[in-house]
Amino acid sequence: MGVVDDQPPQGEPAPPRIGFIGLGVMGRPMALNLLRAGYPLTVQSRSRPPVDELVAAGAQAADSPSAVASSADVVITMLPDTPDVEAVILGPDGVIDGARDSLLVIDMSTINPLGARRVGAALAERGAAFLDAPVSGGQRGAEEATLSIMVGASLPDFERALPILQALGRNIVLIGEVGAGQVAKACNQLIVGATIEAVAEALTLAERAGVTPATVRSALLGGFAQSRILEMHGERMLDGNFQPGFRARLHLKDARIIQALASEVGVELAGFAPVAQRLQQLVDGDLGELDHSALFKLVADQG
Amino acid sequence: MGVVDDQPPQGEPAPPRIGFIGLGVMGRPMALNLLRAGYPLTVQSRSRPPVDELVAAGAQAADSPSAVASSADVVITMLPDTPDVEAVILGPDGVIDGARDSLLVIDMSTINPLGARRVGAALAERGAAFLDAPVSGGQRGAEEATLSIMVGASLPDFERALPILQALGRNIVLIGEVGAGQVAKACNQLIVGATIEAVAEALTLAERAGVTPATVRSALLGGFAQSRILEMHGERMLDGNFQPGFRARLHLKDARIIQALASEVGVELAGFAPVAQRLQQLVDGDLGELDHSALFKLVADQG
Repeated sequence: MGVVDDQPPQGEPAPPRIGFIGLGVMGRPMALNLLRAGYPLTVQSRSRPPVDELVAAGAQAADSPSAVASSADVVITMLPDTPDVEAVILGPDGVIDGARDSLLVIDMSTINPLGARRVGAALAERGAAFLDAPVSGGQRGAEEATLSIMVGASLPDFERALPILQALGRNIVLIGEVGAGQVAKACNQLIVGATIEAVAEALTLAERAGVTPATVRSALLGGFAQSRILEMHGERMLDGNFQPGFRARLHLKDARIIQALASEVGVELAGFAPVAQRLQQLVDGDLGELDHSALFKLVADQG
Repeated sequence: MGVVDDQPPQGEPAPPRIGFIGLGVMGRPMALNLLRAGYPLTVQSRSRPPVDELVAAGAQAADSPSAVASSADVVITMLPDTPDVEAVILGPDGVIDGARDSLLVIDMSTINPLGARRVGAALAERGAAFLDAPVSGGQRGAEEATLSIMVGASLPDFERALPILQALGRNIVLIGEVGAGQVAKACNQLIVGATIEAVAEALTLAERAGVTPATVRSALLGGFAQSRILEMHGERMLDGNFQPGFRARLHLKDARIIQALASEVGVELAGFAPVAQRLQQLVDGDLGELDHSALFKLVADQG
């Protein structure tokens, strides 16, 4: 190819170079989707095999978050919890060390909203932009690029990130300023956890009272008790199918984020408190790798 | 009209004579719907005005439950709670005293499922049939004949009752044997109450964390947190509209039924327990006449 072919055609600027940090269960398929969408990609992760896989698929590898940042226009992080994100972005040799003025950092992990605001503020001081963009939809959503993405950002930053997010998900909503995506995710996990517990209690009550739980579930789907959880997780409970899905130990992590946030902003979550306890009980009972609908087992197996 | 005209045409037997006991907020419009559907109706109620209204609309009045039963093929009861139903059907001068062999009793109140089974068993000893058929859909559903009706009965009794129930509601499901309708209703109220509390906690958390709750609600309706409650009661909460709907004090009554049943069959309802406490708190705070979505006020007004 000649020199002319290497120049982007007028009106079609070269796609931004993306750095991706955290190639776990979710991050690995998301990074692959970015490659498939044609983005030049640099990756970094704690474990070697997914890095090798991504390199084989066409990505570059970098040795540190700062190295990822210095070679990228946009850095995406997909990490387990708040301290991981703070360490990778703000810590020694972190993203912030390699950040240039125009860098956009998109954290897609589920973390404490106040942590997200801290990270966003620190990056802003260096002239870099930050979006919190936690997802729901699980491993399958990551693989099929059908994730729901809840975004906290300024409108211009959101618009800059949108084409990239569209390579990863489908239902992409700007909730509010930085941190708002994480707040929405916390609200989501609160409602999902509480509803799973309620459905588990109701179906167990039906069974113990001598009534077929499947019939109760069907009847209730036609009324005010209808929910996506009654429909999908209710069916899992009836089938005794607790293969994840979304692991109970991750929902416990999210429950701690929810409770920390509630405590920070002064809301008592009387209804959610026992749900968090049940998730802890699942993990303590070595059931943390099961789907969160396994809350049903704790209710059904009692007495 | 001649004598011949008073005979039902062949193949169209005369409609059963119905007795209706309990003309409260729900019972009054239900009885009117039965009259409109062409059923000969005898009514009885504690307070006089709705009796007068029904008589003006074409019903007969009777002085006691036994008098209602002796003039009817089918008796429907719509009463506040388990003891009321037991007194009206099994007590002195009760339905059972006027019951003939072919009598069908349909209790549409929301009561303890084990109470329903006791009533059904006592009637069966006298050769009378019993259905428990609690409803959901509230006053509007009663007025518009769009109630959801959850039925516990034998199949022949269900089939005998069905045309009558179709004059009162739309979504009519046979759940199982006698008592099963009440079990399904208890499960419904458990899930509805717990979901209202979860939505109230989530929307309050969003607001306190500085994020617009309406945006969070909209975003969450697209994912796993979706429910009829998030949709309808979530909107009530955002609008601060707590006109019933379904009164908190009635949900508290149902909560006691749920907890009594759970205790009787040995299920611990860890998640529902604080929801029942919150409903008690609403009633104690003179908010029991508000819609049950007023649980939001308890969460939002704290701190």
